[in-house]
Parts: sequence; structure tokens; C-alpha cells
Amino acid sequence: MSDQRKIYLEDIPLDEAWRRFTEALAATGLWRPFPGEDVPVVSALGRVTAAPVWARISSPHYHAAAMDGYAVRAADTIGATETAPLRLALGPQAVYVDTGDPLPPWANAVIPIEHVQPGPDTIEIMAPVPPWRNVRPMGEDMVATELVLPANHTLVPVDLGAIAGCGHTHVQVRRRPRVAVIPTGTELVPPGVPLRPGDIIEYNSLVLAAQVESWGGQATRWPIIPDDYDRLRAAVQEAVATHDLVLINAGSSAGSEDFTARVVADLGQLLVHGVAVRPGHPVILGMICSRPVIGVPGYPVSAALTGEIFVEPLLARWLGRPPQARPTVQATLTRKVLSPLGDDEYLRVT
Amino acid sequence: MSDQRKIYLEDIPLDEAWRRFTEALAATGLWRPFPGEDVPVVSALGRVTAAPVWARISSPHYHAAAMDGYAVRAADTIGATETAPLRLALGPQAVYVDTGDPLPPWANAVIPIEHVQPGPDTIEIMAPVPPWRNVRPMGEDMVATELVLPANHTLVPVDLGAIAGCGHTHVQVRRRPRVAVIPTGTELVPPGVPLRPGDIIEYNSLVLAAQVESWGGQATRWPIIPDDYDRLRAAVQEAVATHDLVLINAGSSAGSEDFTARVVADLGQLLVHGVAVRPGHPVILGMICSRPVIGVPGYPVSAALTGEIFVEPLLARWLGRPPQARPTVQATLTRKVLSPLGDDEYLRVT
Repeated sequence: MSDQRKIYLEDIPLDEAWRRFTEALAATGLWRPFPGEDVPVVSALGRVTAAPVWARISSPHYHAAAMDGYAVRAADTIGATETAPLRLALGPQAVYVDTGDPLPPWANAVIPIEHVQPGPDTIEIMAPVPPWRNVRPMGEDMVATELVLPANHTLVPVDLGAIAGCGHTHVQVRRRPRVAVIPTGTELVPPGVPLRPGDIIEYNSLVLAAQVESWGGQATRWPIIPDDYDRLRAAVQEAVATHDLVLINAGSSAGSEDFTARVVADLGQLLVHGVAVRPGHPVILGMICSRPVIGVPGYPVSAALTGEIFVEPLLARWLGRPPQARPTVQATLTRKVLSPLGDDEYLRVT
Repeated sequence: MSDQRKIYLEDIPLDEAWRRFTEALAATGLWRPFPGEDVPVVSALGRVTAAPVWARISSPHYHAAAMDGYAVRAADTIGATETAPLRLALGPQAVYVDTGDPLPPWANAVIPIEHVQPGPDTIEIMAPVPPWRNVRPMGEDMVATELVLPANHTLVPVDLGAIAGCGHTHVQVRRRPRVAVIPTGTELVPPGVPLRPGDIIEYNSLVLAAQVESWGGQATRWPIIPDDYDRLRAAVQEAVATHDLVLINAGSSAGSEDFTARVVADLGQLLVHGVAVRPGHPVILGMICSRPVIGVPGYPVSAALTGEIFVEPLLARWLGRPPQARPTVQATLTRKVLSPLGDDEYLRVT
């Protein structure tokens, strides 16, 4: 028993593993952004646009007063001076408007209230006003058919205002990838149960699910599956039928990891079993029924790192946004680090 | 009519406005973090801890094998050499363990499988093993009662694992501030209705609600209230009774802003009417029934900026986290900027 437990395919370099995985995805048409779905603007915060947003209406959608005052015809004001004021008839020649009000169809300028002597039937003005002075002409901010937002843009609060303001109630955004998280291992117990020696609290699925949510996916957590080939196989079959990506989180016992690889190989195609990254090398990559499946190592640091290395870039691809840039910082090593030749080693820094 | 519309209290500097507001909040005991509420760890992503999290259990919570091999008493192995191997009886002196398995109570070391010659009833060893070699002793990662996370910490995915792993199913986090967003203005129409000249699409409430959600609050959007003193007053009374903060978003018409100030003054205390920031100066700050109320200007850029200047720091205070640091970047002005003396001016940069 103990002999067959530790049989890994040889660890392969990270870029080779990633190449095999993306090639298999591309072969099934899955290495590209998801199509869009129409969601109400009010629910679109944080979603990624699947198509450019074009203005449906101009803004303003009418000639609007930019000051409180009187809407006039500019031509009617020619010749007014302080010494020879002009009178304009209220109604046909001058109409009071508040800021934002539409101008009457015949008007093309606004004289501010403070430059006017109002009378009962007329206003008196002391200076001419050029056409379009103190007016926000139709389309000043945005003209119908103009580009408001590009595709593949993650929506922040002010974007919702821009989309609604240019006449839309809905917006085309990428469907959120559905990710199944299956914890497996006989030694695993859910948080909160009394612990016996050998029990391991299952919390990797909490971390993986939270990572998926924070990267724009929707996670479904499975109950713990013990080290039982048939039960794991059944869970994986159900998960691939209803999800875009399946994460199988092997527990720390040697048996769990083996079951995962065998289930992937039997149900589909085992592409990679072991990646030369530390921590995290016993990563499994495969395809089952045209769905990607990732066997995530049980060691918690490896599990979280596998999420960052494999799950985040895949979700980013499906959502049509670039993968998260990793910030680069300078750090000082406090001990000598001897990484195994050919491995990419990830170290935690403070 | 047009005369009384534009009566503002004098614009006051931003820091003076903020001082009046926080003093009024402090006087009613509202200028401090909210108390905590117990939420399941699975729902705690992005929430802020209201108390330190202490480990309930040690991790590992038992002496665990760190290698696949045989659990032994170190004392039984003394004297073993390649030329004079020792035999240990399977059962009383040596027990097979996988990585992660608990040691028998009498064992204190593990000999890796590859250093052992197994027989039917005994194992043969060629070297002694010191106590605790290849063992993860109880509490190696974390000892019960140790600090896992401090208070006022925003939970990221791996934190959920740490909390569950140290024995908790729930975590004390700050209650999410409830924020009412009331759009008001007779000229406002909801997105999607056919537009007539003078109509303004109401989308500031979408932006303000999304800002509130992205800063950790829970927003409730009211339907549009027309410029009607009694209806606005009734809406504000209902909102202050059920929310922690009320935002009244005056439309762009002159009337809307006036109603807001009057309702605040009549129902409670008008602290500030006009802040010397551009854009955004017609901000209203007040208290009604021990609840803060902010009159947000109607101009969309001013509305979003008012959210950033006044709402975000208040929510941060209630959640117990520092206000968002504004990133500092160097930019080149492409035109001369003449800010009114005494005003803080905010410019958009590319």
C-alpha cells in the first residue's frame, strides 16, 4: 500500500503545465471570454462589460439653461447698452428658466438673472448676449451613439451612473463563472465538530470559495467526500455537469490525492500531475467532459497558492479581463534559500 | 421666487464642516465603531473584525506524523547502526503512520518509511532517531489562546481559513452601516422612461448606493420624491427611523436643494449648508433624531465627490477601519487653474 501511494508523474515546470492546460481548454473552445448576459444596471457593480456601451441618448438630451435667468433669442439682444437698455417682452421674447430647464424652441441664449431688470411684462437688459451663451447645448456631455465604456471593463460605482445616464437600464456583462469546490479526505471534519486525534478541520474549501468570489466567480462548496473512489467519482460527475470549473481539494492523507488523479484519469483526461512549484507541487490539471478540473493540494498554503496561480488567471480569461498583476516589492532574505533546481519557489514575506 | 432660491449659508472650509459634523456625531455617541455581530465564517469575506480572534484550539491539536513511516519511542532506537540494526516489534514499539496521522500516546518520533526494513512482525532500523524528529508537535502552528487576527481587520480569503482552522465557526464583525439614499427633484425620472425636454435621468442614487456597498455599507434606494416639502419630510422621517445615515440627493433644480435644507432644519439640526470645495459646494450636513443626514448636491461629479469626502470616512469610522488612503500621483496641469480663494478644488486627471 505505502509503495503505490507516492507515485507521481514527474513534476513539470509551471509554464509547461499552464501550456498543456490552456491548449486543452482552447481545443474545447473554453480559452476565451464567456458570452454576455443582460443585467439591470443596479446589480452590475463589479461585473465586467461583455460589449462596449454606446450612448442611446445625448446628454443633455435638450438645450438646457446653464444659469438661472431668462431664455432669449440672441438676435433680439443686439444693440443693448447701459445707456440704451433694451426691453424684451415676457413670453414671446424672454422666459424665466432655472438651471437645467429646457429652453423654449425659439430661444438660443440665457441672460443671468442678476444682469436683468425685471418688470411686470418685460425685462430690461444692458448688454447683448451671443448665441449659446449660458446654454448647455444638446449633446454637450455626450452625443447619442458615442462610446461610453469599452468591453472588458470592470464596473465601478460611477460607471453605473454613466450607463444609466446615457439611456440604458441594463448592461451586457460576462456571466460569472460557476466553480465547484469539492473537499475530499476521510480525515477531514467540518468546523465546529468535536475533534478527535487525527481529525483535520476542513477549511480550504472556505478559502478557495472566497477566492473565487473575490475574483468574480460563483462558488458552490460540496460537503466533505471521504476517501472513497465511487463517492468522489459521483461528486465530480455531478459537479462537471453543472459548473464551469471543478476544484477537488485533496486532504492531507496520501490516499486522497491518489483518488483525485484516478478519478480525473478515469472520467476524462489527466493532463498534469505534479507541477514544479513550491509549495504546491502535487497540483493536478485535467479535463472531464470539456470541463477543466483542478486537483488542489491539501496543505493550506499550497491550496491558496494554487488558487492564485491557476484559478485566478482562468477566471480572468473567462471574464475578459487581464489576470491580476502581482505587485513587485523589494525584500531582504533573512535566511539562505536553496530552491530545488528547476522549481519555482514561492516564499511568504512580511 | 427667484430671489429666495439661492440663499446659502456662507460656504465654510472643508475641515470646519467636518469638525462640526464629527462633533455632533460624537455628542450622540455615533463617532465610534459599531458594536460587533456574530456571523458564520462562510459569510464573513470583506467584513471587518469587531474583536480580536483568539485560537480556540491548537494546530495541530495532537502530535502528528510529519512523514509517512513508523511511530516509535526515541529511547527504543538508541544504539541502532548499519552494522548492528535494531528490531522493533510492530504494535507495542512501532506503528505505521501516514503524514498527518496522530502518534500513539507512547510514541514521540517517526522513522521515515524509506529508512526501515519492514518484516512481518517487526521493523529493522539502522540508526537512532532523536525525540520529536519527523513529528509536528501539538500547537506547532498555533497554540490555543494565541492571537490569530486583530480587531478592525478586513477579512480576505485566507483569513477565513485561519479563523475556521483555529476552531471557530463564527466571527465577530462590525454590523454593516445601513444607508438610505433619497433622490428628490420634480425634474428627475427613473432610467428607462421616455424622456421629455427638462427631464433628468435619476442615476446619482445608483452611484451613491454602489459607493456605499463598495465601502462596506448596505444601501436602500428610495423612489424619487418630487419637490414637495411634506413628501420629502415624510421620506426623511421614515429613513432616519430605520437607517444609520440618510443621503438626500437634491436634483439640479434650485427648489430641490432648498427643500432639503429646510427639512433638515425643521426635523433636526442644520449644521452646515455649503462647503468650500469645488465641485460640490452645496453640501448639507445635519442631524435628525441622533442620525446624521447629508444633503448631496445634484451635479453628478459633485455627488460622487461628496460620497468620497463625507460618506466614506464616516462608514470607515463606523466599521473601525482607517479611511481609504487617496493615492498620490504627480500630474501635469494642461491649463491654468484659478481656484476661488479659500476653496479646496478637486480636479479630474487622466
